[in-house]
Amino acid sequence: MAVLPPGVRAGQFEAAIRAFGDAVGREWVFTSEEDLGPYRDSFSTVWNTGEERRASAAVAPDTVEQVQAIVRIAGRHRIPLFPISTGKNFGYGGPAPNLHGSVIVDLKRMNRVLEVDEERHFALVEAGVSYFDLYRHIQERGLKVWLDCPDPGWGSPVGNSLERGVGYTNPFYRDHFGASCGMEVVLANGEVMRTGMGALPGARTWQEYRYGFGPDPAGLFAQGNFGIVTKMGFRLMPRPEHYRTGLITVPKRRDFIQLVKTVNYLSDSFLIGEPVYASPLAALMGDADFRATITKPGGPGDAEMDRYASEHDLPSWQVELQFYGPEKTCLANWEYASERLLGEIPGARAVAGESLAVPLNAHQLDNVEAPYRTSIRRHGAQGVPSLGIWKIVSENGHVGFFPIIPRTGEAVFEAQHVLCDALREFDLRPFFTAVTAPLHWHTFAFQLVFAPQVYRNDPARNAVTHRAMQRVVQVAAEHGWGDYRAATVYQDAVADTYSFNDHALRRFHETLKDAADPEGILAPGRGGIWPRRLRRRS
Amino acid sequence: MAVLPPGVRAGQFEAAIRAFGDAVGREWVFTSEEDLGPYRDSFSTVWNTGEERRASAAVAPDTVEQVQAIVRIAGRHRIPLFPISTGKNFGYGGPAPNLHGSVIVDLKRMNRVLEVDEERHFALVEAGVSYFDLYRHIQERGLKVWLDCPDPGWGSPVGNSLERGVGYTNPFYRDHFGASCGMEVVLANGEVMRTGMGALPGARTWQEYRYGFGPDPAGLFAQGNFGIVTKMGFRLMPRPEHYRTGLITVPKRRDFIQLVKTVNYLSDSFLIGEPVYASPLAALMGDADFRATITKPGGPGDAEMDRYASEHDLPSWQVELQFYGPEKTCLANWEYASERLLGEIPGARAVAGESLAVPLNAHQLDNVEAPYRTSIRRHGAQGVPSLGIWKIVSENGHVGFFPIIPRTGEAVFEAQHVLCDALREFDLRPFFTAVTAPLHWHTFAFQLVFAPQVYRNDPARNAVTHRAMQRVVQVAAEHGWGDYRAATVYQDAVADTYSFNDHALRRFHETLKDAADPEGILAPGRGGIWPRRLRRRS
Repeated sequence: MAVLPPGVRAGQFEAAIRAFGDAVGREWVFTSEEDLGPYRDSFSTVWNTGEERRASAAVAPDTVEQVQAIVRIAGRHRIPLFPISTGKNFGYGGPAPNLHGSVIVDLKRMNRVLEVDEERHFALVEAGVSYFDLYRHIQERGLKVWLDCPDPGWGSPVGNSLERGVGYTNPFYRDHFGASCGMEVVLANGEVMRTGMGALPGARTWQEYRYGFGPDPAGLFAQGNFGIVTKMGFRLMPRPEHYRTGLITVPKRRDFIQLVKTVNYLSDSFLIGEPVYASPLAALMGDADFRATITKPGGPGDAEMDRYASEHDLPSWQVELQFYGPEKTCLANWEYASERLLGEIPGARAVAGESLAVPLNAHQLDNVEAPYRTSIRRHGAQGVPSLGIWKIVSENGHVGFFPIIPRTGEAVFEAQHVLCDALREFDLRPFFTAVTAPLHWHTFAFQLVFAPQVYRNDPARNAVTHRAMQRVVQVAAEHGWGDYRAATVYQDAVADTYSFNDHALRRFHETLKDAADPEGILAPGRGGIWPRRLRRRS
Repeated sequence: MAVLPPGVRAGQFEAAIRAFGDAVGREWVFTSEEDLGPYRDSFSTVWNTGEERRASAAVAPDTVEQVQAIVRIAGRHRIPLFPISTGKNFGYGGPAPNLHGSVIVDLKRMNRVLEVDEERHFALVEAGVSYFDLYRHIQERGLKVWLDCPDPGWGSPVGNSLERGVGYTNPFYRDHFGASCGMEVVLANGEVMRTGMGALPGARTWQEYRYGFGPDPAGLFAQGNFGIVTKMGFRLMPRPEHYRTGLITVPKRRDFIQLVKTVNYLSDSFLIGEPVYASPLAALMGDADFRATITKPGGPGDAEMDRYASEHDLPSWQVELQFYGPEKTCLANWEYASERLLGEIPGARAVAGESLAVPLNAHQLDNVEAPYRTSIRRHGAQGVPSLGIWKIVSENGHVGFFPIIPRTGEAVFEAQHVLCDALREFDLRPFFTAVTAPLHWHTFAFQLVFAPQVYRNDPARNAVTHRAMQRVVQVAAEHGWGDYRAATVYQDAVADTYSFNDHALRRFHETLKDAADPEGILAPGRGGIWPRRLRRRS
């Protein structure tokens, strides 16, 4: 075997592998290089370098009892485990562990949909259930509930919410961890624990009230390594009757400030789904002078940007609004939004989009009448998992940095030029320019995206990306912007930036980690938390 | 001094008291019986008995640094601390500690409103800020944001959300812990930690994105004892432009089942504020035969209940709906709700209520036109803190048990007679009858209320209540219904019911507690979590 966990001798590892085989069946333990290929991060910036973190083996349990057995075996042999649910986790490190030599616990076989309630609007699923699985279950039974799903749809509700993933519908349901309700977890000692009302034997509200009684540890299991989540509940959105879209455009660069304020109002009042911001000026990207202007050190002046807009008769900014609900409510909300914005911003325009009964038919799902919207997002906006994202994402792979920035126009302008300047020296296409728009996937916050390509056979270019990633994490943090989610190889760097009071939060987590997992077997390094025996101090 | 912490000698205690005085000023340390009177639970069922838990002293810091100093002194002298924010906590144990002899850390002086943002819709406040304080701050500045406040308004956002309190407006904002965003906490070692984006020095989105990076320990500080929360952020509801009410009545007992289903749909679609259920048949309570029927062992038959309704020309159930938003949206949502329910339930009626521009004037706040609504709730429904609750709550005091039950009509019917039967032997007015309606304060769950009176000078009656409390906790748990919040004296009994897998959740918390607070000084017993040295095994 090429790869071993740190500090584990070959004989000991082989004994553990045999024990895993006894627990789950030998056909569900993988150790050959060929079998372990799918457990490498194929989007890695450090592919085939000494920094790549690879698994020593993988084991695929089918039941909670098998997960318990695996954890107990790992504890006896001090084997680090790295649990994954299902899906690919592309751009975030794939299935590869934080610690080289960890054994992957692949939960994909635990793919049972345990309950979907269309009157109380929730689901309870095992960790290996994908969005496609759950969607199919709902469709086959004709249940009137929607998923809020991320792209692509092969991911799992459990894995995505534990990574704090986001979607495209109502603000509440877009926060996948926030919309989770109740967990079953296998702890480092092999015991099964349930959170929230699940801690009450025979509880009948496990998926209705998430806190239970006393403290709630659920947050420790998201982007964390305090247990292996085997079941999880989710609130589901009642299927709306109607869907409507509308577009607002504003003429001047600084009109964006008022546009954001009012859209914040609409969103926080739960009157709209995900608002999609863009700058129509991005159409001028073919013009070299324009490109130079929008990437100018310190950012362009408002007047020069407004000149481009007026000369080309383009709005400076636009936002696409989406409405869900009864047909008349969708109309009332669109009329309110458009009348208010037109009153607030001179020169703003409102273009009514589509108005469609839900569920959309296949043609409606794939085709968007208004010219301003890419159809790949339509599926997600309708609670339908899809693989359409691959139409716009490079097949080469990518890696990502996703800073959370304040939800104001001013903050967007500042982040545009600060991050543009930070990346100037790297030979990459510009990700941050004066026409970069924020994403409003998170319920109450803006996010920007830096997602440079990764190349399987071009280590030199990947090395540039690798350095750019480290730089942008640092510069963003210096401006108070933190990453919400990172590829495995960057998690320590990101965690380092969350350093208030000499890393008080990380030290608190480390104290809890050493108590809950004294052998340090559960996902060492995940979320920047290392167990005592593997802790490296910077 | 009459009361000492367990295992602490008088001399050691006096040394600690002197040190507290040095840290915060002697005038802010309270030890006399007179000064400690306000720190007793005046609503205690065990008032003046050996079971009453009283403080040995109280100390009132003004700054985070003083809180740190107090914790460090307590650690040196092994003094148990019990932090409180402000307000009364009536019915939940008042300010009195779980552990007799604890020193109260009274945070009422830390009452600074640090930030309110009306464009990003959040507040950051210290622990001693009351709802009244924050409301006044907002009003004085004319900010267009609403609080979601509980009754009475003298409580604090920090304390209420840490107790997982609830309010009366939009479903998202009603979950006060769920709508919190970012904490500052003093840990048992005296260090200051910030959660979420607050862990990033200079973070500019502390109140916009609650999770930060890596695991999130925030849930451990709610109903828990892992730290003293000194600052906390909250999402605020944008002030709506309009408010509308409407009443739906249904003729037959079992119509309640469909009524609940459809109201669940409205609520989970974020189309309504708090729906207020009631049974108009409660008007027949003066009739002894009716009283016997609705408290019949096993519950009454549907036919006999329907006969009362038809003979008295009363609906069996009603729900009052509340709508917030643009005026046309409120109207569209009311029309949708009423048309749908009238179509689904034969004999249902819809009565449009008021339609008022927001903010309501003083007369509108205090007077409700429609006859079906008590005005004391109007303030809360408008985000206005008040003391109006005391118009309907007994001055004698009360204690409470609040089981979470499934959000279905069938579950309500079952809980009515099961809990009625459980309390039959106790000499108390009936709390659970066939006309008891569920509360929909929690975002996605129903709650029932058992809130018997407590008498300062009638220990015999209090003893009955005390036994009834213990019984109802037990019987509810046997049926899968758990309490969400308990008076201090009942917290162990409630925690005992959350016993899945031999108390796996509590044992996990105990493991974390012993690591994070090895001396066991922070609120021993809170939420049912005791530190090792004070742990009693049942």
